[in-house]
Amino acid sequence: MKKFINFPETLLAESLDGFAAAHADIVILGPEYKFVRRRSLTPGKVALVSGGGSGHEPLHVGFVGVGMLDAACPGQVFTSPTPDQIVEAAQAVGGDAGVLFIVKNYAGDRMNFEMAAEMAECRTATILTDDDVAVENSTHSAGRRGVAGTLVVEKIVGAAAERGADLARCVVLGERVNAGTRSMGVALTSCTVPAAGSPTFALSADEMEMGVGIHGEPGRRRVKLARAERIADEMTTAIINDLGDRAAGDLLLFVNGFGGTPSIELYLMYNAARRLLEERGLRVVRSLVGSFVTSLEMAGCSITVSALDSEMIVLWDQPVHTAALRW
Amino acid sequence: MKKFINFPETLLAESLDGFAAAHADIVILGPEYKFVRRRSLTPGKVALVSGGGSGHEPLHVGFVGVGMLDAACPGQVFTSPTPDQIVEAAQAVGGDAGVLFIVKNYAGDRMNFEMAAEMAECRTATILTDDDVAVENSTHSAGRRGVAGTLVVEKIVGAAAERGADLARCVVLGERVNAGTRSMGVALTSCTVPAAGSPTFALSADEMEMGVGIHGEPGRRRVKLARAERIADEMTTAIINDLGDRAAGDLLLFVNGFGGTPSIELYLMYNAARRLLEERGLRVVRSLVGSFVTSLEMAGCSITVSALDSEMIVLWDQPVHTAALRW
Repeated sequence: MKKFINFPETLLAESLDGFAAAHADIVILGPEYKFVRRRSLTPGKVALVSGGGSGHEPLHVGFVGVGMLDAACPGQVFTSPTPDQIVEAAQAVGGDAGVLFIVKNYAGDRMNFEMAAEMAECRTATILTDDDVAVENSTHSAGRRGVAGTLVVEKIVGAAAERGADLARCVVLGERVNAGTRSMGVALTSCTVPAAGSPTFALSADEMEMGVGIHGEPGRRRVKLARAERIADEMTTAIINDLGDRAAGDLLLFVNGFGGTPSIELYLMYNAARRLLEERGLRVVRSLVGSFVTSLEMAGCSITVSALDSEMIVLWDQPVHTAALRW
Repeated sequence: MKKFINFPETLLAESLDGFAAAHADIVILGPEYKFVRRRSLTPGKVALVSGGGSGHEPLHVGFVGVGMLDAACPGQVFTSPTPDQIVEAAQAVGGDAGVLFIVKNYAGDRMNFEMAAEMAECRTATILTDDDVAVENSTHSAGRRGVAGTLVVEKIVGAAAERGADLARCVVLGERVNAGTRSMGVALTSCTVPAAGSPTFALSADEMEMGVGIHGEPGRRRVKLARAERIADEMTTAIINDLGDRAAGDLLLFVNGFGGTPSIELYLMYNAARRLLEERGLRVVRSLVGSFVTSLEMAGCSITVSALDSEMIVLWDQPVHTAALRW
């Protein structure tokens, strides 16, 4: 295992210390590494709290800041945060306007956020993201997995909350964004969880995993490596077929790296995916390319397409000031 | 070779098409993929033009935009841009205020930018960056290599040009920034140039290359993999010893990923480097962590320390709006 670490058991804490120090203008690290919260809170605003296993950075801690999340709870690598982490985060940032949990549809995350919602001494509501079209049920979830599309929900609902939307409005909006968002991923290599010390799965030199999850869990099928445009075609076809009529309007195209894939390849995949969408007469009006929802050092990427109505476009364009996403 | 490509010979063009389409609000792609320039130019401003081999993205095309570069010339992967690319870029963005070339100290880049300076029908000046303390001469350069510190020069001089600094002033400032900037890198894995199809060098499972260059060229020594804090110690010690008295003031600490190293490890390295600097009584006042000056998918990172005077801090903090760097 070749990683910049001291000890697997201190990796997360040391990394969070570094994150909080590097971005001290934006965030504060909560006690005992339980959460990362905004340095300045806005009274009266709905507070957005997300979280999940670490190893997907910048999701979620890198999205804490004005225009996006109020707090994020980092679990150990690929392990859900505990209910008490979530409760403490909610109580640290939530006020009378309530707290909105944004939860990726994984069994552990769902359970722990549900327990936190019961325990928290504040009003809460939850949006569950399940944008991954690759599999209908997975080794880690009942129903579709929540993956890179979670960023889109966090950005758009974050902007709405910033502009004063109330809790019920945020829920409806977030559910609409999620309902119009589809993703699919592909892995060229595995990743290695530091505490495990060996790769999560094995792929031979000429294989890839189509539809992989963001923890390296199995996708649709393991196939021979193919040219980028054929990979992009399979992914965009699955996404567009699943989106159905929703794909007819304005679209966000988001090509996301899993951690080990360089920018030059991500932009090539973006180019291929965009051309394929445009050849179908579809309209890409907003774009995002980069490694935002990762699986440690996995080589691979996902494609996300979100159907955006005019309100969502306005909210997508609103300023955001976080460690990882800024405009 | 596991990469998202169609054909090695079309990788760069397809990637640049994707880049230009994804960031059409910021950049325009020049004819025949010769350069990427800002969509809107500011008349009367000194124009900053950089470039170099591709495979280091986001350097340099990702730094084109308000507050940083006016144009960047992408060569083929790890290959200098040609003089005619540079001339066309300079003439596309340069006006009466002149053109400033920012050039990493590599033999091919120096030669081609020098030829371009002779050929260009506009006033030009050049800043050469040579921040890499690892080796005094390298396989690709006479003198030290220009590496991640180039970003710092581009950001600070870019801000000065935006505020109206003339060509001579930009040169003096850029040389001062470069003189106060030191970097050192370490590779945990090689990278694979697509046209070559096999790794640039071989590292066994328990080895790392200390002082590696951004093309995978040899560094100081090949040693056994060590704990992150020992790696950070060797790198920061080399940097600080070389900076000498300049390290006594305000410092920027920049931990840069080489492409295949995930964010969770980069922040851990930042944490280790920062602690080591602070234990020496040094003062980190600005920070940057991310994969900005890469070597394709190489796992590894570099540490850069820049001594910043008060003017440079003001300029560092000025707004920047590029594909890869925004605040």
